[in-house]
Amino acid sequence: MKQSKLFTKTRKEVPTNEEAKNAKLLIRAGYIHKEMAGVYSYLPLGLRVLNKIVEIIRREMNAIGGQEVFLSALQDPEIWKKSGRWSDEAFENWFKTKIKAGGEAGLGFTHEEPLTNLMKNHISSFRDLPRYVYQFQTKFRNEPRARSGIIRGREFLMKDFYSFSRDTQEHEIFYEKAKQAYQNIFAEAGIGAQTFLTFASGGTFSKNSHEFQTATDAGEDTIYLCEKCKVAVNKEIFVEQNTCPECGVKELVEKRAVEVGNIFSLGTRFSEAFGLNYLDEKGEKKLVIMGSYGIGPGRLMGTIVEVLADEKGIVWPKTVAPFQIHLIAVFDENGKVKIAAEKLYSALLKNGIEVLFDDRDLRAGEKFADADLLGIPLRVVISEKTLKENKIETKERATSEISLISESELINLLNNS
Amino acid sequence: MKQSKLFTKTRKEVPTNEEAKNAKLLIRAGYIHKEMAGVYSYLPLGLRVLNKIVEIIRREMNAIGGQEVFLSALQDPEIWKKSGRWSDEAFENWFKTKIKAGGEAGLGFTHEEPLTNLMKNHISSFRDLPRYVYQFQTKFRNEPRARSGIIRGREFLMKDFYSFSRDTQEHEIFYEKAKQAYQNIFAEAGIGAQTFLTFASGGTFSKNSHEFQTATDAGEDTIYLCEKCKVAVNKEIFVEQNTCPECGVKELVEKRAVEVGNIFSLGTRFSEAFGLNYLDEKGEKKLVIMGSYGIGPGRLMGTIVEVLADEKGIVWPKTVAPFQIHLIAVFDENGKVKIAAEKLYSALLKNGIEVLFDDRDLRAGEKFADADLLGIPLRVVISEKTLKENKIETKERATSEISLISESELINLLNNS
Repeated sequence: MKQSKLFTKTRKEVPTNEEAKNAKLLIRAGYIHKEMAGVYSYLPLGLRVLNKIVEIIRREMNAIGGQEVFLSALQDPEIWKKSGRWSDEAFENWFKTKIKAGGEAGLGFTHEEPLTNLMKNHISSFRDLPRYVYQFQTKFRNEPRARSGIIRGREFLMKDFYSFSRDTQEHEIFYEKAKQAYQNIFAEAGIGAQTFLTFASGGTFSKNSHEFQTATDAGEDTIYLCEKCKVAVNKEIFVEQNTCPECGVKELVEKRAVEVGNIFSLGTRFSEAFGLNYLDEKGEKKLVIMGSYGIGPGRLMGTIVEVLADEKGIVWPKTVAPFQIHLIAVFDENGKVKIAAEKLYSALLKNGIEVLFDDRDLRAGEKFADADLLGIPLRVVISEKTLKENKIETKERATSEISLISESELINLLNNS
Repeated sequence: MKQSKLFTKTRKEVPTNEEAKNAKLLIRAGYIHKEMAGVYSYLPLGLRVLNKIVEIIRREMNAIGGQEVFLSALQDPEIWKKSGRWSDEAFENWFKTKIKAGGEAGLGFTHEEPLTNLMKNHISSFRDLPRYVYQFQTKFRNEPRARSGIIRGREFLMKDFYSFSRDTQEHEIFYEKAKQAYQNIFAEAGIGAQTFLTFASGGTFSKNSHEFQTATDAGEDTIYLCEKCKVAVNKEIFVEQNTCPECGVKELVEKRAVEVGNIFSLGTRFSEAFGLNYLDEKGEKKLVIMGSYGIGPGRLMGTIVEVLADEKGIVWPKTVAPFQIHLIAVFDENGKVKIAAEKLYSALLKNGIEVLFDDRDLRAGEKFADADLLGIPLRVVISEKTLKENKIETKERATSEISLISESELINLLNNS
């Protein structure tokens, strides 16, 4: 894409009404726009990043057998009364709204209730199990505070996955698969090294549930990390479990962290409330065993910014970057650079490489500052100087490593990475 | 996908609380689930159809220069007060909700206001124009009645596209391009022959706006069609314009129709309210000229069902069908059909063909009835009888045309269609 056509512009001023680094940088770079406290819109570059994260998650959810759906945001109070979660006492962060034809509706903050209810139409026998269902869907939570940018919003995209199993054993085998899929996602999204499987309270139905916590000072949570096993316990269970759950050592390191994912065993909490039963091989009626598994793609995007950004701007991992290359033409007076840059741009597109081409009539310094702020992994500069050597200059955003290479070397490099 | 793994089941009973054919068929076939009046969830097969429609629209919107964004559902009252559309008198179908930290928010029913407001950060010079921005996003409308299934819901997906131009001339050139893109979309989605460019009132800023109306008895609108020119006028302007706007004939045919799309010139209605100005070549301040262009992908899906379904069930055009082939194994006693069907299923997948494979242990008649209800374009049957002839039987869902062909003929047919 040509940057002269991109409708968003970067800005130098730091937004005054934001505390979080992710919001400050993403707004300055034109990735997102703040609509209200805790409510953000995604602009073209931001949506490209969000969609890449969504695709990484979707691939892993499909690989463990997930079938994708898209449930409604508006929620029927009658369904939520069955599980006892309609009242503001049971869940304090509801958004509710009046239906003019009569009655009211909630705005979904999660979807256990409507999904369990609809699965009653489709599960009746042991042959109908196990089933795995997920979606990417906007959730609404009436948070008292909204100061963490896109890490904790009042409206946010969420991937929620639900498992329906015959018994605890079948559930637990799947739960381990989901755990692995989650680890794959955070590794592929570029924050695997900073993200730790974290033991949390399991509620009534299981000894433990698990969170995936990414260490960063921007985090609202506290974890206690075993640096040898790379697992942690969260603050809630640390009072009872103050040693590493895997190797037993006592030397756990306290860290601030963001919860980027969680997996829960729900047992029969919802299948009982909704009467979600099946007949087993012997014709006996049994309750379905459920689990739920959540990741917020926007929260993950914000966390990546918090963890990897430097003083100059955002640093995207290749897997989630809006473009692979930021091609910058430093124009000369006789127009040779313009011609060469357009030619290189076409060659890159023809090779299926995603390029943001800075063809704007601006000084080199402004273009370089924008490139640092936008955080595309590889900056490629073409100028009078590089043309003389029949080369182009590449600079890795993450390491600042600079090389002078030929056009064909660049294309080979990108096609093989 | 193997049908034994698909979590949704078809049902014979017609839902008692639905009037609209689209809702009855889509619910029976397991494409959608009714959550509340006017509120539907999309199940795996339904989401596949919806996503295919979204992709057709996205391709056309990108081709006319659209840049995709994703704006928030929650709306800031302060923004809507600027255009005078916050009050329930100005727009009677708002859903509104309270923010616990203070204040309230609306649920977006359209996005002229927030987009015009945010474009102020990005448009200041004639060099920043024209700009084209669009999204696929859930809209909320507190409709007094909700009886048309997914054709008119209280919550629905919408593609809304907005144009920002320097002057009326630039706007009008783009408006014609958008008109053509819309015609491409309805043709590709399989209802081009039934969908008519319809002249409607243009409001303050333009003589006409245009609707795209699909003729069907299920429609809530009335149009007056010139059968020669294939254009229509809507009821609202028929009192003044009772002849064909193109050839002038008086013989217009009254028809019921669904409005599947609309395009509007907005003039300076919103740019004035928000102060969206730019400096032209001479340094003079001018207001941006806007247009808006909407299509509801879910409404389009419902309309396709209304127009093309027959007494046996849904009939999908190839371009939007959830799968291209419904492979049906009619099992024999010695297991040969099972082996041959699995082999054919693998061969089809290897050739990149989308197949729903009915591998369930059911009678042939039940499988055929499901195939008719689900409406996948080509039914492919493999049975003891077809195996003897070393052939498979194909049946077109739309025409009921049956052929006996070989496996390689089938794959050639699909790869070339």
